[in-house]
Amino acid sequence: MVGEPAGIGPEVTVRAWASGRVHEVSVPLLVGSAASVERALDLTKVSARLRVMRSLEPLSDDPAVIDILDTGALDDRALPFAKDTLESGIATAKWLAELDALARDGVFAGTVMGPISTGSLKLAGKLDMVISPTPGESYLLLLTGPLRVAHLTDHMSIRAVCDLITPELIDTALQQIDAALRSWGVANPRIVVAGLNPHAIGDEEDRAIGPGVARARARGINVDGPSAPDTVFRQCIEGRYDLVLAMFHDQGHIAVKTWGFSGNCVIMMGPPYLHMSVAHGTAYDIVGTGKADPSMMLSAMRTCGVLTAGKGFSEVDR
Amino acid sequence: MVGEPAGIGPEVTVRAWASGRVHEVSVPLLVGSAASVERALDLTKVSARLRVMRSLEPLSDDPAVIDILDTGALDDRALPFAKDTLESGIATAKWLAELDALARDGVFAGTVMGPISTGSLKLAGKLDMVISPTPGESYLLLLTGPLRVAHLTDHMSIRAVCDLITPELIDTALQQIDAALRSWGVANPRIVVAGLNPHAIGDEEDRAIGPGVARARARGINVDGPSAPDTVFRQCIEGRYDLVLAMFHDQGHIAVKTWGFSGNCVIMMGPPYLHMSVAHGTAYDIVGTGKADPSMMLSAMRTCGVLTAGKGFSEVDR
Repeated sequence: MVGEPAGIGPEVTVRAWASGRVHEVSVPLLVGSAASVERALDLTKVSARLRVMRSLEPLSDDPAVIDILDTGALDDRALPFAKDTLESGIATAKWLAELDALARDGVFAGTVMGPISTGSLKLAGKLDMVISPTPGESYLLLLTGPLRVAHLTDHMSIRAVCDLITPELIDTALQQIDAALRSWGVANPRIVVAGLNPHAIGDEEDRAIGPGVARARARGINVDGPSAPDTVFRQCIEGRYDLVLAMFHDQGHIAVKTWGFSGNCVIMMGPPYLHMSVAHGTAYDIVGTGKADPSMMLSAMRTCGVLTAGKGFSEVDR
Repeated sequence: MVGEPAGIGPEVTVRAWASGRVHEVSVPLLVGSAASVERALDLTKVSARLRVMRSLEPLSDDPAVIDILDTGALDDRALPFAKDTLESGIATAKWLAELDALARDGVFAGTVMGPISTGSLKLAGKLDMVISPTPGESYLLLLTGPLRVAHLTDHMSIRAVCDLITPELIDTALQQIDAALRSWGVANPRIVVAGLNPHAIGDEEDRAIGPGVARARARGINVDGPSAPDTVFRQCIEGRYDLVLAMFHDQGHIAVKTWGFSGNCVIMMGPPYLHMSVAHGTAYDIVGTGKADPSMMLSAMRTCGVLTAGKGFSEVDR
């Protein structure tokens, strides 16, 4: 999905598409505003032919042809730059629904959500269309090279996290993560669970995290922990693990954002298909200037292709 | 202080010393076991002359001369490798006391504690000789290039941290940090306080961190925050701030250890002199092999010289 038409989504999408690297691993289709993509092609001087579909047709495997499904959700005249609008909020909600339907129907194995505007969605009263992480159901996973971090909790106070963690929750999350990694082609996934407290020594480790890890191990899941939060991310970077399960938002986000490679992309684990998004926003401050960096979008699109094909993480950064 | 004789302290110390880079910024003196340094010179093939003092004498400014104050705390025959002993625990406690006395008497402006063994100190019942961080009094500061992080709390459970934070505590810490930075030659220090919760939005931010920052600002301290914990460390790396005040151990340790440069060194803020230590341990697994990397010791020794001379952080990594 191209993302908010007023943001950098269309620009970074056509650049990533035209690189040809997405087509090495998948047959992609865009969903969104064809007019915004047309404008992005002009702006970026990317030479590709836009082929607009009103309903699904056979797709091209040629990177010089950009296939887009545009069901007319947005009036083409409603195309400002750098501005949240009710119209694009309504359209974004429709595109997200279309994306979800295409993936649930098995037409596509995975989806990539371009940078949307929560401001526009809020104007349209459709903010609930964005899947948000819910402990026990869905988890945010950040990927940047060898550093891959799933988060048990997201926008929740630290105090609430302390109260929330139970052996059941840890065990449930580990089962879901292990199954996802296997479906993506990671053989015998090596997972590690971060502790909550310094050096992973504390009440929550004894009472909940440790017992939860033990249950998952008893199921045959290859998982270590709870491990010291300050060293576990580097162990993942160095290849000892495929993924870290962090206990709270900043544990993982500090590691990923401070390590700071630009290849970041995001998986929302929960839906029955691979649901990805880009790690940046609409960047209204630079939209239309041609300065937007397409590397995160390219990373998300390639990763989606590689993982839905069951090729594992090693093919992602090729 | 050379550190535990059975560990890599003596090896990395003589290598750092012989590099000549410590003497560019200071006139150093070693405190510890002369016999362990003698053995390290043999082992590392560092060509320098050891000059042993039983009491303080005038110091050489020649890196080829290693001045050491050895008051005979350790019997020279008690020199195993890679083994905690009661004897070295007793001696380490004595060296730490000597170090503290020399600095409090103003003979030295700063001290560097080599890798000591808490195991040996425990055998000697002297673990209390190691200064540990105490909120409101002393704070652990990690430095690695442009990333500098002070920690409001150390080995404390996350839940206890939530209960501990008050405006007074934030304000007190900021005053102490601001004064220390100024004394080290950082003009108009730019400090930022990390929030506790995701995006720095939560009860503790409203109730304690925000009001604490406001009090410090009213005193004229140049401090921002509470800022989102997942972006604040990168802002420091990029030069927007001189230092981040983290709310708990792992917030800062995850950032520093995941970013992962080898120049890490440690300052314990609290004593009335610059009290530093190295960021690694005794490394019993590689002691005596000559594999020990002296870069952290060199970083600590140089940083001590630069900051006690009031030259600011810019001179540290020259």
